[in-house]
Amino acid sequence: MAVQTVATTSESTVDLGPAAALSCRECGHRVPLGPVFACEECFGPLEIAYDFSGYDTEELRRRIEAGPANIWRYAPLLPVPADVAGKPNINPGWTKLVQADNLARELGVTGGLYVKDDSGNPTHSFKDRVVAQALEAARAFGFTTLSCSSTGNLAGAVGAAAARAGFRSCVFIPHDLEQGKIVMAAVYGGELVGIEGNYDDVNRFCSELIGDPAGEGWGFVNVNLRPYYAEGSKTLAYEICEQLGWRLPDQIVVPIASGSQLTKIDKGLQELIKLGLVEDRPYKIFGAQAEGCSPVSTAFKAGHDVVRPQKPNTIAKSLAIGNPADGPYVLDIARRTGGAVEDVTDEEVVDAIKLLARTEGIFAETAGGVTVGVTRKLLEAGVLDPAKTTVVLNTGDGLKTLDAVAGTGLTATIRPTLDSFREAGLA
Amino acid sequence: MAVQTVATTSESTVDLGPAAALSCRECGHRVPLGPVFACEECFGPLEIAYDFSGYDTEELRRRIEAGPANIWRYAPLLPVPADVAGKPNINPGWTKLVQADNLARELGVTGGLYVKDDSGNPTHSFKDRVVAQALEAARAFGFTTLSCSSTGNLAGAVGAAAARAGFRSCVFIPHDLEQGKIVMAAVYGGELVGIEGNYDDVNRFCSELIGDPAGEGWGFVNVNLRPYYAEGSKTLAYEICEQLGWRLPDQIVVPIASGSQLTKIDKGLQELIKLGLVEDRPYKIFGAQAEGCSPVSTAFKAGHDVVRPQKPNTIAKSLAIGNPADGPYVLDIARRTGGAVEDVTDEEVVDAIKLLARTEGIFAETAGGVTVGVTRKLLEAGVLDPAKTTVVLNTGDGLKTLDAVAGTGLTATIRPTLDSFREAGLA
Repeated sequence: MAVQTVATTSESTVDLGPAAALSCRECGHRVPLGPVFACEECFGPLEIAYDFSGYDTEELRRRIEAGPANIWRYAPLLPVPADVAGKPNINPGWTKLVQADNLARELGVTGGLYVKDDSGNPTHSFKDRVVAQALEAARAFGFTTLSCSSTGNLAGAVGAAAARAGFRSCVFIPHDLEQGKIVMAAVYGGELVGIEGNYDDVNRFCSELIGDPAGEGWGFVNVNLRPYYAEGSKTLAYEICEQLGWRLPDQIVVPIASGSQLTKIDKGLQELIKLGLVEDRPYKIFGAQAEGCSPVSTAFKAGHDVVRPQKPNTIAKSLAIGNPADGPYVLDIARRTGGAVEDVTDEEVVDAIKLLARTEGIFAETAGGVTVGVTRKLLEAGVLDPAKTTVVLNTGDGLKTLDAVAGTGLTATIRPTLDSFREAGLA
Repeated sequence: MAVQTVATTSESTVDLGPAAALSCRECGHRVPLGPVFACEECFGPLEIAYDFSGYDTEELRRRIEAGPANIWRYAPLLPVPADVAGKPNINPGWTKLVQADNLARELGVTGGLYVKDDSGNPTHSFKDRVVAQALEAARAFGFTTLSCSSTGNLAGAVGAAAARAGFRSCVFIPHDLEQGKIVMAAVYGGELVGIEGNYDDVNRFCSELIGDPAGEGWGFVNVNLRPYYAEGSKTLAYEICEQLGWRLPDQIVVPIASGSQLTKIDKGLQELIKLGLVEDRPYKIFGAQAEGCSPVSTAFKAGHDVVRPQKPNTIAKSLAIGNPADGPYVLDIARRTGGAVEDVTDEEVVDAIKLLARTEGIFAETAGGVTVGVTRKLLEAGVLDPAKTTVVLNTGDGLKTLDAVAGTGLTATIRPTLDSFREAGLA
């Protein structure tokens, strides 16, 4: 398989703002910025290394606060050119941090409970954040087609971003996806290709395509653009802290799919500390999985450093990655910060979706049910401290996973008369 | 029928900020603020009369700009208490005004084309704006139950707002609604009552309930709280102008259901002019309907002042009000400003949804297809001026009307091989 994974130029010539190079997370080897994702020395994952020298803390804070109400307010901290806000982009982020007092009361949290509600993004999931970064990298590298393999949220995010930016898009999905999901991805008018096979077949095919001349000029957001893409999750950390008044939360509960989001939230918090934008004090990061796909939680509880793959079987399909690439890093971070990784059953996921909707008027995707469910479980177990400021992530929208709460229905059926109304005990 | 329509107290004692009284749109008769909606003299519709005296233009502008990123930045211009932003509310508004350069190119607009995308609201429709106003009125009047009749967006908006504010909610819908719509309304945990009958039966029942002791303490957002509720649409006008840099657009295209939204957008623009927040210059307001429910457009084209009711038959269900209460006022405004009212077929609606998604990455509800479709039609007819700054409203989210674009699907199906990829002509 001829996947292009290593840098082929000797120097970065692209303008991606403070991004200085790619650096291997395992061995530290540095290569110039390019559409590559694995270290040429050790095949470890590459990530962005920044040059933040020369930033004055208070000037940076003012610049951010005067920026647009989207992720580009943090352009000085992201792998994007300084003029990114003026380019055609779907401008995700700056979603609500909802002070969830009703939910706090139900769960017994006294230190402040907040839901970071990423269903407010343009295509209603946090994927808009990461795709927006990949798009800027694609622009910088001269790609003209934006692509991905997906079974849901990512397809819509890529389709929408490409449409607005004037890119061709070509999204690969298993051919037998539910019709609703196909419509959500197809409406943006790009190529939507069904692959005769399962999601693993789709991924394998995409890896082949990247290494083939046919894939030239193609940016696969979560493959050859992955180092850039992944940085989008840092913006969740930035926003949470700024929305708390430039303060670190004590505890954050993050869903785990590949684990990338959790590691980048940690990276974002560390950056804010180093830049002096928040006071340096301890915080704990907690990972949340569904029991039916809980490889990281299983490893955490067993005290293992490696993650054994699982075959997913859960309603939380947006988290159903059985072999999470960043699993070991998640274990590291949970242990280093004093956090934990926990999982909940599908039934608990559904209960948690309803709990969040009933208390705060937020209709979450199944992934949001996972984080709220795990929050409840960890509070009951005394692992989460109810007296501490806690932030729970909701990364998607309930409208995309209606099936999960399909049992929810009418509380009564009556004839259109006052008598019938009274008989039903509704008065 | 004992509907309570007239004021029963002699003086306003509630604190709803600058709202001074209710005033009849027909005869000007004033009554104190209360949960009433029709004039005791002439049965005309009551609307909010404000006391904006004492506002300094530049101080007001600064106050708004320093306000929260939601509708409460305009609290000084709304019937809400000054401390509204601190109350539990789902905080809608401040949605994106998307500069739609790609769409403009396709439609030949050179003067600047913008989409005000209200799918970014918490429950993904503009209804969050109006329900938020009704909720504050309900709080002020001491109501404990929030209610409405609905077939869609409104049910979710009321359920979510009530959940967060700690109100009981009781929403009435036809018992045979599609399961998906029932789920979207039921998930917030309030009472969801199916009425054996059609939407007219539901409305008739609600009117009876308001006049009955059983309905005491109930705020029906679009009946006894309608004067407050309706004001929420003013915030669309405020946001559009502020987002354009405190400037009036030349042309606005607004969907028509009851017609209330269009009239309140005009009211909002007039207020901004009177307060000196924008320069006073001409603007034109255009109304958009679906052909299958086009009573106002039919009257406009025929030169009539009255609107003859129709039996709706269109996929644009959120606009399907056959007997629009504010129809005559819409005709007035379209004619006074030099605008027009036009309609498009269901096929044109679907085409316009796809056009907007393909060009700007915005997946609109059918109502958004109506406004974009009408915009295209009016440009082709030379009624809209392509050289003028034009704003088109998208008031809802495509995820709620997936059926409308159900025909959208895979562009190709291939085996997971490069050969198959090439054969399909995708390289």
